Amino acid sequence: MTFLERNIRLLIAYDGTLYQGWQRQKESPTIQGTIENILFKITQQPVSLVGAGRTDSGVHAWGQVASFKTASSMPTATIKAALTALLPKDILIRRVEEVEPTFHARFSSRAKVYDYLICDHSPNIPFFRHYVWFLPEPVDLDLIKNGLSLLAGEHDFSSFQSQGSEVSHSVRTLYQAILLPGPWGGFKLRFMANGFLRHMVRNMVGTLIRIGFRRISIKELEEILKAKDRSQAGEMAPARGLFLRKVLYK
Amino acid sequence: MTFLERNIRLLIAYDGTLYQGWQRQKESPTIQGTIENILFKITQQPVSLVGAGRTDSGVHAWGQVASFKTASSMPTATIKAALTALLPKDILIRRVEEVEPTFHARFSSRAKVYDYLICDHSPNIPFFRHYVWFLPEPVDLDLIKNGLSLLAGEHDFSSFQSQGSEVSHSVRTLYQAILLPGPWGGFKLRFMANGFLRHMVRNMVGTLIRIGFRRISIKELEEILKAKDRSQAGEMAPARGLFLRKVLYK
Repeated sequence: MTFLERNIRLLIAYDGTLYQGWQRQKESPTIQGTIENILFKITQQPVSLVGAGRTDSGVHAWGQVASFKTASSMPTATIKAALTALLPKDILIRRVEEVEPTFHARFSSRAKVYDYLICDHSPNIPFFRHYVWFLPEPVDLDLIKNGLSLLAGEHDFSSFQSQGSEVSHSVRTLYQAILLPGPWGGFKLRFMANGFLRHMVRNMVGTLIRIGFRRISIKELEEILKAKDRSQAGEMAPARGLFLRKVLYK
Repeated sequence: MTFLERNIRLLIAYDGTLYQGWQRQKESPTIQGTIENILFKITQQPVSLVGAGRTDSGVHAWGQVASFKTASSMPTATIKAALTALLPKDILIRRVEEVEPTFHARFSSRAKVYDYLICDHSPNIPFFRHYVWFLPEPVDLDLIKNGLSLLAGEHDFSSFQSQGSEVSHSVRTLYQAILLPGPWGGFKLRFMANGFLRHMVRNMVGTLIRIGFRRISIKELEEILKAKDRSQAGEMAPARGLFLRKVLYK
């Protein structure tokens, strides 16, 4: 809280497989805890890191953003080099920069982009087992595209929110909900929104895949969305296919 | 040794990260040991699995081939389903088939193809850390291609053989030694030969990358090859970028 305090922003990629998610926990390794511990070693000051998105256990990130305040005068290039040298290889610091004091990784963010990787015509390929949801049978991609179109826009997404959430209202604007070709012959579902409820992407993906399997119709998806009741939607998709791709700021 | 004995061939993909290579060891987990143990459970008979290539610790395979003899009458589809159900997710059985009694995964093979994945203009991407050799600076791809052309053909590859090998002669024919675009903006080096000496691919790749860094000239590569002396070549490339891609039979 001194006038010398600097505000530092990190751009972070990580493989979430071995972590209990982003948020610091007492006993289990987390991304936030791991980076905070190293920043403490580097700056010799306690650091409180704010992440843009609290990814769950097993969820990955290519473009997570986090910020912290520090009285340390260490140049950002030195912080980056030290983090790179000391962090485990499943966490990559892509960028370190000083930002205006008012910047806050979570509250300043305007939108976030998540990708969910799926493969529906291959057995579980060993090299991608932590990064892709392998489906046991092919899905109808046109039906999934119809489902995505229906979800896009401003809605109350309560039906796709897991319990344990503390948000006061559940209306979000899904700017983008599209299907793209994925690596290795699979596909990915991309979602851009001004905010996401707890487990919202994984709950939407779980329901969309059931639509692709023709177990839920587009009509039923409409009803699920209107019901504003989590128990109506399909089972949640696994964590491993989910990537926080990008966080957008003004 | 009964006339009822069947000869079964497996096509196997695996992530070698957590294994001490292919070959069975007393204390450490290996690919061969893991599959043999499960086959014993399935068939209720001791199984001796012969692999086409003895991959090292940390080396991967997309198309390893192995064969075993069994008196079990279990259909191949059942063996495949049982292996898929019981094996860990980092080993995938792509195919199971009954073959003629004379087939031997190693001695019947005519050639093997190895790929080595490299990225020279990116930091160590967390998701690919077990599968790609990330170089700290860009390499000259044209120089590497020149090096590959020089290595192709029939040569005594002693200079690229690690100690501890038991082969009686070290002349091999490298049918193919080419550079291909790799996934994620990197490249891969592909080698097809009638046989490979111990660590031959990793020793060649280590030297080729030094050529790409202009630390070894093409002229020096020629001398290294002629010297038939391992101490002349560059340091061995790490295991993680190497994939046994395919084994070819008549």
